[in-house]
Amino acid sequence: MLTHPSIVLLLRRHHLFSQLPERVFEDVCNLAVLKRLECNGTLMHQGDPAKRFFLLVSGQVKLFRVTGEGQENLVEIIQPGQTFAEALLFSQARCYPVSASAIKDSVLVSIEGTHYRKALEDQPKVCLAILASMSIHLHQRLKDIDNLTLASASRRVINFLLQERDPRDGQVVLQVSKRLVASKLGIQPETFSRILHRLVDGGLIAMERRNIRILAEEALEAYQQ
Amino acid sequence: MLTHPSIVLLLRRHHLFSQLPERVFEDVCNLAVLKRLECNGTLMHQGDPAKRFFLLVSGQVKLFRVTGEGQENLVEIIQPGQTFAEALLFSQARCYPVSASAIKDSVLVSIEGTHYRKALEDQPKVCLAILASMSIHLHQRLKDIDNLTLASASRRVINFLLQERDPRDGQVVLQVSKRLVASKLGIQPETFSRILHRLVDGGLIAMERRNIRILAEEALEAYQQ
Repeated sequence: MLTHPSIVLLLRRHHLFSQLPERVFEDVCNLAVLKRLECNGTLMHQGDPAKRFFLLVSGQVKLFRVTGEGQENLVEIIQPGQTFAEALLFSQARCYPVSASAIKDSVLVSIEGTHYRKALEDQPKVCLAILASMSIHLHQRLKDIDNLTLASASRRVINFLLQERDPRDGQVVLQVSKRLVASKLGIQPETFSRILHRLVDGGLIAMERRNIRILAEEALEAYQQ
Repeated sequence: MLTHPSIVLLLRRHHLFSQLPERVFEDVCNLAVLKRLECNGTLMHQGDPAKRFFLLVSGQVKLFRVTGEGQENLVEIIQPGQTFAEALLFSQARCYPVSASAIKDSVLVSIEGTHYRKALEDQPKVCLAILASMSIHLHQRLKDIDNLTLASASRRVINFLLQERDPRDGQVVLQVSKRLVASKLGIQPETFSRILHRLVDGGLIAMERRNIRILAEEALEAYQQ
């Protein structure tokens, strides 16, 4: 039975639990247990019956598969706040397709699957509400990916500008079309334009057609970090 | 009614549709329409009744909010293959909280929401199956984020190694602990170790305690791209 108030709260805030009616959530907590794993401790083996799913409270857990040759293939690194093995539960898989072990001292909530699943089957509205919060969560992650990709592309664009600038006046004159420069940098032309406009908005560069002037070199270098 | 075979297939493969029974999927297609938007064309306005959700087939769409001062705040950029506004449908929101317009010529599938939602309410198993495929999708995106973060951290580590190396023998002697170096590079010590081990495995560096020897400088520079 899960009683630790801060961990109950962490669970309650997760998108798989935030939409559960109070009574159902209490039942879930009654059937949940807290688990501690030391670094390198094993949580489950590939092929074990999949009866529970997990929320990582602290530490780090790796999911991996062992190939026929005994080689270990990393599947995913789980960070605190993330759940794992819940997809198995939704799809009623019988066995865990991966092994899991801690790569730091870890604390987890282990949640009984059948009861949770039953609650969703009985209450389609709850199931839809969870779909809604999972959708929102997914959109946030897609946004994160967009930002990360943009950050990496920005770094390439800034590198390019700093390399190509005339040291006397800080000017970069693009010798070829923006489309070609973008392709040379391995990014989409639209992304290239988006980044240049962002730098103009930030007052870091000025741009007139193929003439780009670096206004704040140090700030530009810092932006890249 | 949606009939174009390749677009029907694209829809069928999406995690919101892949688990629908054939008959339900056909009904969804019967109520879906194909929409073309020219660049800058508007799909919906913030506050419009939320009756449909969308799958972007090609092009690019931005979701944005307009503030009281008339300023436009970007919420998300939608890429081909992504759905949007489906979370509203699951949660039965009445109005779109954002506006959407095309930032490239775009093709979309516009899907009637009530019917889709009704199908899930009537068949909890389908709803759970969609939860399962959405979970898997979410885990894949978390993995993408992990890889992108690692790529950006790798770039910082490699930059550091190239800067600090002794030009005569390609050796880097860490003057302080790995923990401190990691913190200086703004990454977690575990991530720093993970990256170093990856470079060792790739034959790019050799490592003995605080001595790191660069074995393949050009390959290391290329790795950074």
